[in-house]
Amino acid sequence: MKLATLNDGSRDGRLLVVSRDLGTAVSAPKDYPTMQAALDNWAECEPELQKLYGQLNDNTAADAFELKIEQLAAPLRRSYQYLDGACYISHIQRNRQARGDSLPDDILDAPLVYQGISHGYMSWNDPIKLPREEDGIDFEAEIAAVTGDVPIGVSPEEAVDYIRLFVLLQDTSLRALVPPELKRTFGFLTSKPCSALGPIAVTPDELGNLWDGKMVHGKMNVWVRGKKFAEIESGIDSPFHYGDMIAHVAITRPFEPGTIVGLGTVSNEDDSVGCGCIGEQRAMEIIKTGEAKTPLLRFGDSLRIEHLDYEGNSIFGPIEQKVSQLQ
Amino acid sequence: MKLATLNDGSRDGRLLVVSRDLGTAVSAPKDYPTMQAALDNWAECEPELQKLYGQLNDNTAADAFELKIEQLAAPLRRSYQYLDGACYISHIQRNRQARGDSLPDDILDAPLVYQGISHGYMSWNDPIKLPREEDGIDFEAEIAAVTGDVPIGVSPEEAVDYIRLFVLLQDTSLRALVPPELKRTFGFLTSKPCSALGPIAVTPDELGNLWDGKMVHGKMNVWVRGKKFAEIESGIDSPFHYGDMIAHVAITRPFEPGTIVGLGTVSNEDDSVGCGCIGEQRAMEIIKTGEAKTPLLRFGDSLRIEHLDYEGNSIFGPIEQKVSQLQ
Repeated sequence: MKLATLNDGSRDGRLLVVSRDLGTAVSAPKDYPTMQAALDNWAECEPELQKLYGQLNDNTAADAFELKIEQLAAPLRRSYQYLDGACYISHIQRNRQARGDSLPDDILDAPLVYQGISHGYMSWNDPIKLPREEDGIDFEAEIAAVTGDVPIGVSPEEAVDYIRLFVLLQDTSLRALVPPELKRTFGFLTSKPCSALGPIAVTPDELGNLWDGKMVHGKMNVWVRGKKFAEIESGIDSPFHYGDMIAHVAITRPFEPGTIVGLGTVSNEDDSVGCGCIGEQRAMEIIKTGEAKTPLLRFGDSLRIEHLDYEGNSIFGPIEQKVSQLQ
Repeated sequence: MKLATLNDGSRDGRLLVVSRDLGTAVSAPKDYPTMQAALDNWAECEPELQKLYGQLNDNTAADAFELKIEQLAAPLRRSYQYLDGACYISHIQRNRQARGDSLPDDILDAPLVYQGISHGYMSWNDPIKLPREEDGIDFEAEIAAVTGDVPIGVSPEEAVDYIRLFVLLQDTSLRALVPPELKRTFGFLTSKPCSALGPIAVTPDELGNLWDGKMVHGKMNVWVRGKKFAEIESGIDSPFHYGDMIAHVAITRPFEPGTIVGLGTVSNEDDSVGCGCIGEQRAMEIIKTGEAKTPLLRFGDSLRIEHLDYEGNSIFGPIEQKVSQLQ
């Protein structure tokens, strides 16, 4: 099933069920006006939404209308929890090696995770408006799971059953603000402004073979300043999967529905595929040549992220953003 | 104005306006069924709520009923953002000194803040259910601000105008899980399980002289295992106030309404007043005698926190919790 949120001017938008080919949509039943309301009542609403999805795909849905992707907001504009990992080892390894560090001793003991900003999610085509280029504007390409209620103490194997949706995530980062913030050991805060979500949220079953019960396979395609930047396999090269991430944090807390769980910037050991953020690309350049050449994002620069299956079909829709100066 | 949330079995409860003497209450108008809905629409709803508050205090409110404090949930059970500081210097200084560390160089440059768990807030009298005593169960006594929409780039002076409410906060902490987590520099996660909020949320104007536009004055009273543990002045000994905290994080992000902002464990330089958490008490014991004597919380232990004005009146209602084992 594919879901989306119509930007109707309200804070949380209006929940839509979207046809498989993204051609048509229908408003969700009035008991579930928003994505949060659906996730809060998933057991009851999921069969109703699935029924509407079937009717949309059969062209029999009453009140179906043409989907206009430019009218879509982030599927969830605000969430009660965002957990972001640094799970792809080559991403961490390159960043540390470039500054002369080795991997932390405990890197394989448990996923490296922080709780980050979970509100203000931009639409897929919103401009990235930020006050200063000097803060070091970068993106991170990720696929995030959206959970239902997750009980405290869940195992990694059980945890994946609480995943309701997957979305594309552009985790905006301010590289110059990261080192002083991490030096204080309290995690990322000002170095992580609002991020963007892809327009279409997809249930695990809709992914077919791309979802192996642990990871989402397929290729993360990235273009920066109009040029192809990376094409990364999302389903490999991480020792931890979505269930590990959820279970690790759920050791001492249950989750609210709508928790967004990312594995961090997608990255492959094969360095010929490019990088899921500019920071890692610059680290790779430093390792190879002693000098970072690719500039971080500047005002006016464009970014495009799209996750494709092995036949080239877009799974979550694109993220297409331009960076501009916040006035 | 005093507000509260009735535990009606729903996820977000039902918003109540509560009389000044906490004797009676009335349901908020149906357009604002929950605390979040009121905060989302504060400009429109605040005059309506204030009118009801005046009628309640005059005994002229239609449909007023007797307030039963044991039926109250946390004023906000889930929020889109919780920012917690470590602002009271003596709290940090004692904890660091006990382990042989000095204060960080940049401690006065900007507030030390992390983004923590913002869901699962317990009611004021809920048991603290946790899986293991060995995790090192502790509390932290705080007063938290609840904001409205906060624009990006706000100044500390402007920031305090976006505070809608204040609440009492018991920030549950797992001391044994803190050091390995902070060593990873990604902030607190498993070391911070669900916390509790006091039953009554209070607007700044209701605080009178206790709110000086920067800090909330009065005395934080704490009892542990039935014995008086601390009586701390909440309005002194912090170089940063609520406006500083909000402005620091808002450098690169706007806030959603309902953001909860704590200054961290209240603490005074005068060490005769006791401590706002057991961890700091143990640090003080180590500094003075070389040995920590006061045990952390164990299953069966009780905790009481109440913030009083200088005439001994309870401002936010009490937090009274017992620790028990999660089955």
